[in-house]
Amino acid sequence: MKIKYTLLHKDKNSNARYGTLQTNYGTFETPMFMPVGTQATVKTLDTRELKEINSAVILSNTYHLWLRPGEDIVDKAGGLHKFMNYNGPILTDSGGFQVFSLAKSKDITEEGVKFKSHLNGENLLLTPEKSIQIQNKLDSDIAMSFDECPPYPVTYEYMKKSVERTLRWAKRGKAVHNNERQSLFGIVQGGEFQDLREYSAKETVKLDFDGYSIGGTSVGEDKETMMKMIDYGIKYLPTDKPRYLMGVGEPTDIFEGVLRGIDMFDCVLPTRLARHGHAFTLDGKINLKNAKYKEDFTPIDNECDCECCKHYTKAYVRHLIIANETLGQRLLSIHNLRFLIKITENIRESIKNDTFLEYKKEFIDRYRKLNN
Amino acid sequence: MKIKYTLLHKDKNSNARYGTLQTNYGTFETPMFMPVGTQATVKTLDTRELKEINSAVILSNTYHLWLRPGEDIVDKAGGLHKFMNYNGPILTDSGGFQVFSLAKSKDITEEGVKFKSHLNGENLLLTPEKSIQIQNKLDSDIAMSFDECPPYPVTYEYMKKSVERTLRWAKRGKAVHNNERQSLFGIVQGGEFQDLREYSAKETVKLDFDGYSIGGTSVGEDKETMMKMIDYGIKYLPTDKPRYLMGVGEPTDIFEGVLRGIDMFDCVLPTRLARHGHAFTLDGKINLKNAKYKEDFTPIDNECDCECCKHYTKAYVRHLIIANETLGQRLLSIHNLRFLIKITENIRESIKNDTFLEYKKEFIDRYRKLNN
Repeated sequence: MKIKYTLLHKDKNSNARYGTLQTNYGTFETPMFMPVGTQATVKTLDTRELKEINSAVILSNTYHLWLRPGEDIVDKAGGLHKFMNYNGPILTDSGGFQVFSLAKSKDITEEGVKFKSHLNGENLLLTPEKSIQIQNKLDSDIAMSFDECPPYPVTYEYMKKSVERTLRWAKRGKAVHNNERQSLFGIVQGGEFQDLREYSAKETVKLDFDGYSIGGTSVGEDKETMMKMIDYGIKYLPTDKPRYLMGVGEPTDIFEGVLRGIDMFDCVLPTRLARHGHAFTLDGKINLKNAKYKEDFTPIDNECDCECCKHYTKAYVRHLIIANETLGQRLLSIHNLRFLIKITENIRESIKNDTFLEYKKEFIDRYRKLNN
Repeated sequence: MKIKYTLLHKDKNSNARYGTLQTNYGTFETPMFMPVGTQATVKTLDTRELKEINSAVILSNTYHLWLRPGEDIVDKAGGLHKFMNYNGPILTDSGGFQVFSLAKSKDITEEGVKFKSHLNGENLLLTPEKSIQIQNKLDSDIAMSFDECPPYPVTYEYMKKSVERTLRWAKRGKAVHNNERQSLFGIVQGGEFQDLREYSAKETVKLDFDGYSIGGTSVGEDKETMMKMIDYGIKYLPTDKPRYLMGVGEPTDIFEGVLRGIDMFDCVLPTRLARHGHAFTLDGKINLKNAKYKEDFTPIDNECDCECCKHYTKAYVRHLIIANETLGQRLLSIHNLRFLIKITENIRESIKNDTFLEYKKEFIDRYRKLNN
């Protein structure tokens, strides 16, 4: 079945909204944070751990799975859920972002994007149709339209042409989409230009997708600009469809996104931070490599209910990170992901109680102590 | 408390023996295989997974923990069990093997071994007393005497002097041992020389340790020589103390060791194989990188009860290994460790039923199909 979003409560004092997303794998509450499993695995975690941190939708990357192991193998495995043993909803991106950020020698034409594989230099062509066909085979619950994700900044003229092309690509992708149990999201682009964001939002909505993403954020722009990118487009999106802010996972940005009516977030930040020995805490990010944690036999967060904080100390996790033992990255990944998911749980409660603004202020004031 | 070995059944047809080891953390059956957690972590696994594969004693390395994070930090954490959150018995080695195999510019004197740290080149001195003092602080359940582990082969003259020195070192270490809840094992050396192995065994037993190891195996000698090294010494070891064959983890070698009366084994092989994409199966070792597993959607071993085989396919594990995702190494580590532990479970059953020789033949005949 296609996903179904139900708006259950709108915050009295902001655009924050609490709702549910009905999926092939059960119904989940929003706003939600989606862990990223680039290569059909959320780095270092197994799927039991994903369930334990209360993950709902997880993300996987079409570009990476297309190159390796290939969508046909995932298809033969019975789809991505069976392939990676995840008994929950999966969203696949279009591959566009990776083609634009990872691949070499890109050549963007009306047909699609010609590029060289970042793995072996092979010449490849990703088109809107191909992206959807790959995602159909991956059999994710939510597929994304293939869009151009230009760097920041580009000229108004470039962005205008890009938005038009992304709309034509969205139509072409939708036309070939052929998977009854898979929903398809459209993507609003337009950079920091208000009229282009508005235009992109209105025209994308006309194509009638199952949900809408706000793209082109977290590509180098400042926070203020990112918020404008959301504001300019979101008001034209239907209230009965989910809204997804792509690539955003800084805790403070999640609050700002929710404030503006966003339902879904994803980001590699929690697992990437973990690889560098960093952990989220309510008082800001900490670097476990710091010598002051050498003899700190307390958990990263006393109140956290994750496997890392329940069983292991800062001193031990620090030792693992310094000794380059992957259990260190794994424990930090579990903690960082759980931290963001827990935030969204608290956010949902606060929206239901119309106390979102208070919770947002309280969280951000404390979180910025260390980080600003 | 010190460990206590109880011999419960001796195989009618061989020297194989079934018994129990009473420890500070409960009573465990022998023969047993002990996973190696070099740096206070069995690579890629957390301690819950260790329990799930039915681990009993695990090993950790004194040399590594001495260098990083340092025994004082482990001591302040409340000992190694608390530091790494392992609620089961831990054996620490003496550091000798690592000093001889990893360190640079070794200088062996009567006092001990001067060497340069493999991490930062620092000049260090490890003595029999220091090794025991570090292990006392690590607070493992079983400590090992500091011995010289010469390469293979050395001359008879060298080995004779080495055995004498190792005996003097054993005495010195025992004299300073000071941890009521920690047992201390002596190590039989002597290379491939029958009279030296006999001498080493008899003299080491005179020192009255809580258990005895057979050292100097798996250092380059052929299998036949390894078995002689066991045979020459083991008959002089008391039957009421556990016997530990250091560094041995090839399935066929475990059978040969058990046949000769060994109770405990350890080896990095299962986790090292995992890092290279290899898995134990009843039909021999397989290399998951092999293209023939690309579309193999069956578990590594249909009958295996490990988390890898219960939930994941060869094709998926292969994808993870090829894509360099650490979950691949982790799943293979879980499988390979469980494989060896399961073998020892079966071995124990077979000894109790006096069918060890039949089981040994059946296992080895099948296992060698692929590997020989």
